[in-house]
Amino acid sequence: MDQITLDALNKADRATFAAVLGEVMELAPWVADAAYGARPFASLSALYQAMTDAVRNAGDERVRALINGHPDLAGKAAREGRLTADSTAEQTSAGLDRLSEDEYATFHRLNDAYRKKFGMPFIVCVRRHGKESILREFERRLDNDAAAERQAALTEIFRIAALRLDQRVTAADRLKVHGHLSTHVLDVHGGHPAEGVVIQLYEIGAFGKTRAIKRAITNADGRTDQPLFAGTPIPIANYELHFVISDYFARQKVPISDPPFLGIVPVRFAVAEPEGRYHVPLLVTPWSYSTYRGS
Amino acid sequence: MDQITLDALNKADRATFAAVLGEVMELAPWVADAAYGARPFASLSALYQAMTDAVRNAGDERVRALINGHPDLAGKAAREGRLTADSTAEQTSAGLDRLSEDEYATFHRLNDAYRKKFGMPFIVCVRRHGKESILREFERRLDNDAAAERQAALTEIFRIAALRLDQRVTAADRLKVHGHLSTHVLDVHGGHPAEGVVIQLYEIGAFGKTRAIKRAITNADGRTDQPLFAGTPIPIANYELHFVISDYFARQKVPISDPPFLGIVPVRFAVAEPEGRYHVPLLVTPWSYSTYRGS
Amino acid sequence: MDQITLDALNKADRATFAAVLGEVMELAPWVADAAYGARPFASLSALYQAMTDAVRNAGDERVRALINGHPDLAGKAAREGRLTADSTAEQTSAGLDRLSEDEYATFHRLNDAYRKKFGMPFIVCVRRHGKESILREFERRLDNDAAAERQAALTEIFRIAALRLDQRVTAADRLKVHGHLSTHVLDVHGGHPAEGVVIQLYEIGAFGKTRAIKRAITNADGRTDQPLFAGTPIPIANYELHFVISDYFARQKVPISDPPFLGIVPVRFAVAEPEGRYHVPLLVTPWSYSTYRGS
Amino acid sequence: MDQITLDALNKADRATFAAVLGEVMELAPWVADAAYGARPFASLSALYQAMTDAVRNAGDERVRALINGHPDLAGKAAREGRLTADSTAEQTSAGLDRLSEDEYATFHRLNDAYRKKFGMPFIVCVRRHGKESILREFERRLDNDAAAERQAALTEIFRIAALRLDQRVTAADRLKVHGHLSTHVLDVHGGHPAEGVVIQLYEIGAFGKTRAIKRAITNADGRTDQPLFAGTPIPIANYELHFVISDYFARQKVPISDPPFLGIVPVRFAVAEPEGRYHVPLLVTPWSYSTYRGS
Repeated sequence: MDQITLDALNKADRATFAAVLGEVMELAPWVADAAYGARPFASLSALYQAMTDAVRNAGDERVRALINGHPDLAGKAAREGRLTADSTAEQTSAGLDRLSEDEYATFHRLNDAYRKKFGMPFIVCVRRHGKESILREFERRLDNDAAAERQAALTEIFRIAALRLDQRVTAADRLKVHGHLSTHVLDVHGGHPAEGVVIQLYEIGAFGKTRAIKRAITNADGRTDQPLFAGTPIPIANYELHFVISDYFARQKVPISDPPFLGIVPVRFAVAEPEGRYHVPLLVTPWSYSTYRGS
Repeated sequence: MDQITLDALNKADRATFAAVLGEVMELAPWVADAAYGARPFASLSALYQAMTDAVRNAGDERVRALINGHPDLAGKAAREGRLTADSTAEQTSAGLDRLSEDEYATFHRLNDAYRKKFGMPFIVCVRRHGKESILREFERRLDNDAAAERQAALTEIFRIAALRLDQRVTAADRLKVHGHLSTHVLDVHGGHPAEGVVIQLYEIGAFGKTRAIKRAITNADGRTDQPLFAGTPIPIANYELHFVISDYFARQKVPISDPPFLGIVPVRFAVAEPEGRYHVPLLVTPWSYSTYRGS
Repeated sequence: MDQITLDALNKADRATFAAVLGEVMELAPWVADAAYGARPFASLSALYQAMTDAVRNAGDERVRALINGHPDLAGKAAREGRLTADSTAEQTSAGLDRLSEDEYATFHRLNDAYRKKFGMPFIVCVRRHGKESILREFERRLDNDAAAERQAALTEIFRIAALRLDQRVTAADRLKVHGHLSTHVLDVHGGHPAEGVVIQLYEIGAFGKTRAIKRAITNADGRTDQPLFAGTPIPIANYELHFVISDYFARQKVPISDPPFLGIVPVRFAVAEPEGRYHVPLLVTPWSYSTYRGS
Repeated sequence: MDQITLDALNKADRATFAAVLGEVMELAPWVADAAYGARPFASLSALYQAMTDAVRNAGDERVRALINGHPDLAGKAAREGRLTADSTAEQTSAGLDRLSEDEYATFHRLNDAYRKKFGMPFIVCVRRHGKESILREFERRLDNDAAAERQAALTEIFRIAALRLDQRVTAADRLKVHGHLSTHVLDVHGGHPAEGVVIQLYEIGAFGKTRAIKRAITNADGRTDQPLFAGTPIPIANYELHFVISDYFARQKVPISDPPFLGIVPVRFAVAEPEGRYHVPLLVTPWSYSTYRGS
């Protein structure tokens, strides 16, 4: 998606402004239009505030329409390719476009139960969740009362909007929508960073199904050149980092057993805060290791 | 298998002696018979020594016959159920009775290549190996010369004999054929052993295939009531211990994230010495852990 | 002190019984005499119970006399050598016979304040405390009310009695008066216990003053042949274990810096439960270490 | 000392140049003068190179004079206040101005022995050493032969010069004369950086004598606002970091024993490379900790 600077947006005419921001709130271009009058914005946060305030101050009917404009998750519209570009990308990012028949059936059942109880679609900012986490949220929120769910729906709509804004507009400030996942491998056998360690990051789904997400190699400082996650929320899910330790120590000419006591070191952890900072280092010898949530 | 004491064996007549020990060396009852004359044995080690000496001192032809009396691994005789009871149990323990067609083909190819090069069957004490390790040994030993392989075959025959003796005869001493695998979970958040932690032990095969071996729960001292392995060799293989840590800390009423940063802690390690002592403890908080080869 | 078996004591006449147990309660031979009638004792615990019950059931006057029969800590009687043998040994064990003039003055002031407030001497089982801990207890208990202090005095008298009994009588059971302090050094650089590591145990007093208590060397299992403390309470105090790690790794021919990054590793910890089990291991490489309260 | 930019120095006249750099080599203004002709210098390294080249290319007599122009360590000139300002500051930084009589005698003896064997003063860049390390160097170098010592003297003269240059001239580049010591405290009980931990850094001398060097408090990221050492070499010596852990956990309302199992955590380590990067973090719970040379 092409990005525009906040500066340019502040100077844009109403049509351009609408073209850029019209879809930030699903099927509700009136929100961007309402914000247009509040220009210029000193920061991206101010623009975000203006758009969410427009919703907060809107009449009940408009808000209900905004909520109802959201598509079902893995629903009929999605299966028939009738979603907005943003919704399609979002549902795809969470793997909702490649469910098994059983999973489709589960979503179908939950969508129906939710609509029946609350009279509106279930809304969740799917970029903040892995598939299992979405289902857990779904089950959990079905137990809420109507007022709580109306509030929850708005919270999620604003999260979706923040991410869509973040993709469209660059500014001096950034919205707090990004998580950060990094690692660091320290060779405490040799007393220095471990260079050249191959690292694989997997997402761990139900029944131990794993999905490779990223591969990286540690540099001279024992870190990866790029963070494992940055610039997006980290979906709430279980992850496993695999550190190929035996190859590293073999290259160091350290005498090790055959097969090596430690070959691949798996470190499994969950992300609970998609916008959180997760540093998961490894202190390792051929016979021991430690890991922890660092900072 | 019924066991006999060394004492009783020392007093047994030749027929009983033969009935007990005749199959310790595959299809070679003459070995037990040769040892009969050396009674009484002060220890099981002395009996073992007498039997292996009988082989060492036998003529070349007898030794060749002993070697050739061994069946192929996962071979025709095995598939047709024509193995001795001992060999059947041994090949089953290593999973050679439940190979995929691809794996059968691999064994077939290796058996042929080995017989072609060395004119004898490939012999390995399969109780000391997981399936991948047997295949690795096979490939490795195919590169040897004939003299080295004749020596290797005898070494393996003696290892098989030691395990068969260990199963048949009890004595004050034990042959060094047993490995030991244990664990210990220490809650360094609370400063005491972690009681009630569910532990699963898996063998990790090729392509990450896992096979559950044992399940245990830690006692008040943070240990399992029984070792995870004892009384047998530990097959050379990769293993993974799973510690269900989040349930433990939830029971301790420790505030943790949702989902918990550490849920199941996997510790993957390889056993390289089947008769070795492996102690693999876990020092854990809800946010960190250490593991190491202990003692 | 000569020890007698519970069995022999059960069969002893009244005079012998009195000779053995008469001083278990300070200047109160009537307590042992009262227990004489309850023979035979099935266990040392039963004998201890009988003696403490005799006190609990005695009239108020006798109890007051028992309490008042105790000497001041580091008081005039102690300085003039007029204590019972037991009291002398106890006060010496806590270093109360070698105070500085300032420390004597502090004890003097506290003894006076305590007597003035409560009309009795301050009683504490000094074998369970280092010097600083006694002073802390003194200050703390001065804030109590009279009832609490009468109870505290009895608790301490019973603790003193238990230790005196433990020294005099052997039986199948033991009173719970013993602490246990042990260590274990694991070389996680090499993946095995660290043998031959010199260990020094110090007590750390006020202003960092250290007093050497014990020296030991790790055996092939990385442990000391004898526990660092056993068979007595561990005085409540700060301790420091010194592990001479650089010499060990130099002997292992591990390349280390000059001077070595880790030379002596000090591990400082406090004992809060004199009858507790303290296991303080060290997992060490030339560049890292971990320690923890183990089990 | 006032600093001048390399730029200004490049444009300075001969007299100014001499005033700034004349004392970079002890009592040898000719070295700076020789470098004057090589202006302008593209970097501080180039200036340093020019000055050391001037010495390397000088005649034997001049070099001998340069060497002999250096004062004894803790010698007569020092005791009588007759050193150059630089030498005074350097000897003071290593504590050579406050030796005990025994230590003076030791230096006196070593100075004499060295002069007698090599006919020149013992030269060492004292800013790179603690007192014990200087004495160790002294003893060690007394065993060298004359050629090795002449080389060693020049190496040390150049190190002294580099530090004097670093103090006088600022430039885009820096000479590699600075070490770096930092720490980081991570609360792995709570899963976040430990804020507000009081840290003391001590130098540990012979016989365990400690000298407080620095006090700091960890910030919200568990680090100190300033490194513990930066901008100077770290003297080769033993150090101890004290982390006041019990106060921190008490503030976190974590239940701990009384006295706390861990009160002050001492971490003792040696610096062997004065220009090295030392990161010595602490991962800590109320019952355990780890430390290591990090990066």
